[in-house]
Amino acid sequence: MAITVVGSVAFDTVETPAGRVDRCLAGAATYFSLAASYFTDVRVIAVVGEDFSAKEEAVFAARGIDTRGVERAPGKSFFWQGSYLENLNEAKTLQTDLNVFASFEPKIPAVYEDSEFLFLANIDPVLQKRVRDAMPNVKLVGGDTMNYWINDHRDNLLKMLAGVDILLINDTETKLLAGSRNPVKAARDVLSLGPKSLVVKHGEYGATAFFGPNSFHGNGLDSYHPFRAPALPLAEVVDPTGAGDSFAGGFFGYIASQPKLTPAVFKRAMFYGGVMGSFTVERFGTERLQQLSREEIEERFAIFRELTHLD
Amino acid sequence: MAITVVGSVAFDTVETPAGRVDRCLAGAATYFSLAASYFTDVRVIAVVGEDFSAKEEAVFAARGIDTRGVERAPGKSFFWQGSYLENLNEAKTLQTDLNVFASFEPKIPAVYEDSEFLFLANIDPVLQKRVRDAMPNVKLVGGDTMNYWINDHRDNLLKMLAGVDILLINDTETKLLAGSRNPVKAARDVLSLGPKSLVVKHGEYGATAFFGPNSFHGNGLDSYHPFRAPALPLAEVVDPTGAGDSFAGGFFGYIASQPKLTPAVFKRAMFYGGVMGSFTVERFGTERLQQLSREEIEERFAIFRELTHLD
Repeated sequence: MAITVVGSVAFDTVETPAGRVDRCLAGAATYFSLAASYFTDVRVIAVVGEDFSAKEEAVFAARGIDTRGVERAPGKSFFWQGSYLENLNEAKTLQTDLNVFASFEPKIPAVYEDSEFLFLANIDPVLQKRVRDAMPNVKLVGGDTMNYWINDHRDNLLKMLAGVDILLINDTETKLLAGSRNPVKAARDVLSLGPKSLVVKHGEYGATAFFGPNSFHGNGLDSYHPFRAPALPLAEVVDPTGAGDSFAGGFFGYIASQPKLTPAVFKRAMFYGGVMGSFTVERFGTERLQQLSREEIEERFAIFRELTHLD
Repeated sequence: MAITVVGSVAFDTVETPAGRVDRCLAGAATYFSLAASYFTDVRVIAVVGEDFSAKEEAVFAARGIDTRGVERAPGKSFFWQGSYLENLNEAKTLQTDLNVFASFEPKIPAVYEDSEFLFLANIDPVLQKRVRDAMPNVKLVGGDTMNYWINDHRDNLLKMLAGVDILLINDTETKLLAGSRNPVKAARDVLSLGPKSLVVKHGEYGATAFFGPNSFHGNGLDSYHPFRAPALPLAEVVDPTGAGDSFAGGFFGYIASQPKLTPAVFKRAMFYGGVMGSFTVERFGTERLQQLSREEIEERFAIFRELTHLD
């Protein structure tokens, strides 16, 4: 079943202890759609500039990703420059040029309208809500956000959250959104804002899913009992950029590939999310995500399973 | 099979967002031995002052813990005062009075000499090594340490580490000891110092075990493949003090209760460590550890198992 994702398609310049890349293909919607493409059909809504060439287009095409919703606009694509030289767990932003993204007005191609899944990657919550409202027939909506929207656009964000089924954010964003530093209380607060489930990403420590009291009713995922999936300790992290978006792509892609969202599917999806994130950080940008095989993914899934499995 | 533990038996004054306790029974050897006592016989080597009364003695006696190695010395017991008001994940030390601990010379009762397991809780590595050398017949040695010894007593610490089979320390201590911020490289560095296994405690994120290439040979635990056990997200953490020592007690206590250290036993021990840590933080000091039942422990073990278990 197809997923439509709306978010950024961008170029990144990134410095890490492992080296530097200039203007590599990146952006939340790129990481998400590449990761999800190993599981299901993916359709992208985004805007790019004149610097988005046949070379970048070919990356999406090679993975069978539908880019008919990627608008070409005069000017340059979204550009981000960051450094992980001081802290591999948190990027220091050196430059952000919105470029064509500043006036982005998402347009949904008619051929996307039968998508059963929708993922709202981290962009202005006003745009996220507009896309969500324009696709009333989707079965399941996932979403992401970041500190900037939580702090400075809270009202808009709350309106968006009311229409999200599964919110995927990190520890810091959860605490900021909830106003509690306790992880369980913070999760309850966030779940009271609309989402049926909250998946909190912990970086190198994995991710924890919390479920609201009325969520996924009848599916057995209707209590606060959390579920935790590990991350794989890696001897080298080349570039952490996009790990969270890749997690979301693996997570949602796997769910979309299954006939029904059961507790077992949700849990396996959490593991697949970690698997896709672990591949992403092994190379700069989306390089590793472009060249995976389903066999490699299954092999790593088995390693993730062994990592916490009691005999 | 019996465990001997050497370490501090102390009084703590602790402030947390949940309240304050004055001079409650604490210390690494106390947390460790109470946690381990639910699994196996425990024997303590420590020193206490004249303020250690029949009331404190009764806490050990009620759990059947052998305190014949707890020396009574003139003066006051070790005292620590800390605050978690600013950060529940890290104590701010307000006062440390070594008192009788300043001149502690561990003496091993003859009745302890047939112990098959030895745990060296966090004290001066010179004393840890002395106890370890005086008990050459133990089958398995566990150890802990802290930043102070890593930074300022490194040579003594390295001598101690050469005699430790399983080292249990936290993330910060691991990176400090290894000189690498990458968790896998740091683990390899630490394993090159002597321990067959390193268990890195991550606080609210659980713990990860790493195994050296020649460790536990023949037991299947002889590669760098890590194992990760979760911690339980708790709605209220009353007092985090002693969580790590309780983890070590549950971990070692479970291993000592089993006929052989197989990979399955090691993994279950990691989960029992998390279980005992999760109980400790629910009340101030050792209060919760004093009043558990094996049934409660097994119930929580089942919750921990469900937390990461794929169907």
